[in-house]
Amino acid sequence: MEDHLARQWLATALEEARASLAEGGIPIGAALYGADGTLLGRGHNLRVQEDDPSLHAETAAFRNAGRQRSYRGTTMVTTLSPCWYCSGLVRQFGISRVVVGEDETFRGGQEWLAAHGVEVVVLGDPRCVTLMKDFIAANPVLWNEDIGQ
Amino acid sequence: MEDHLARQWLATALEEARASLAEGGIPIGAALYGADGTLLGRGHNLRVQEDDPSLHAETAAFRNAGRQRSYRGTTMVTTLSPCWYCSGLVRQFGISRVVVGEDETFRGGQEWLAAHGVEVVVLGDPRCVTLMKDFIAANPVLWNEDIGQ
Repeated sequence: MEDHLARQWLATALEEARASLAEGGIPIGAALYGADGTLLGRGHNLRVQEDDPSLHAETAAFRNAGRQRSYRGTTMVTTLSPCWYCSGLVRQFGISRVVVGEDETFRGGQEWLAAHGVEVVVLGDPRCVTLMKDFIAANPVLWNEDIGQ
Repeated sequence: MEDHLARQWLATALEEARASLAEGGIPIGAALYGADGTLLGRGHNLRVQEDDPSLHAETAAFRNAGRQRSYRGTTMVTTLSPCWYCSGLVRQFGISRVVVGEDETFRGGQEWLAAHGVEVVVLGDPRCVTLMKDFIAANPVLWNEDIGQ
């Protein structure tokens, strides 16, 4: 995909991540875009805000997109490399592409997804890296809880 | 684990599956048990009831268990072999064991989980098989939507 479009879509996910941080939550955001570029759903991690461990950013965006008959051609944009849970979501529902803001602070199943035919675009966005590095340094126990460590 | 305990725990998941069917939903149920045998959470598929595609049975049980600091020693019991989404959940959070009611009508990531150190117990329960076979025959479109086909 075109780099400028990937970065434009990442901006939506980054807004979500920052909204979560402002709410006292874990600063990871995501958005699901349709094959035609329509925004289907956006969301952020809600572990802290709703005491809900099942709502990682990607699952929140997926949930907010509502029921879809097919995910062919859709793109999941996320500020952070998807964990195994969210990678499994992408594979099971046939989401075609994943745009990753950064994969330096954490890396989940992105290579596994690529090996199974998902297009993976890693942007290495320094704002995403800083957001997570600062958060993890300040909240190591909460971060480990969120990734099951 | 002992067969009678696995079957006892499966009864909880089967109750959830039947509750979902009675609500007009997809008849898959699950329960998360702690290392000491305590029931931490139970739930069922809520795609139809809440128009929520993110609530597969296993994610619903995980969600209803609330925030946990560790999943070491826990067991996810499910009436149906977990899809990639729910298999990813098990792997990411370090759930130690999966008890599967049946894997004839659908098989997701259970072998992948076993290869990554998760204990997988398949019970081949005929009640679970019948429940899914009848449901899939009567609702093929809805079933395919739920597994992203």
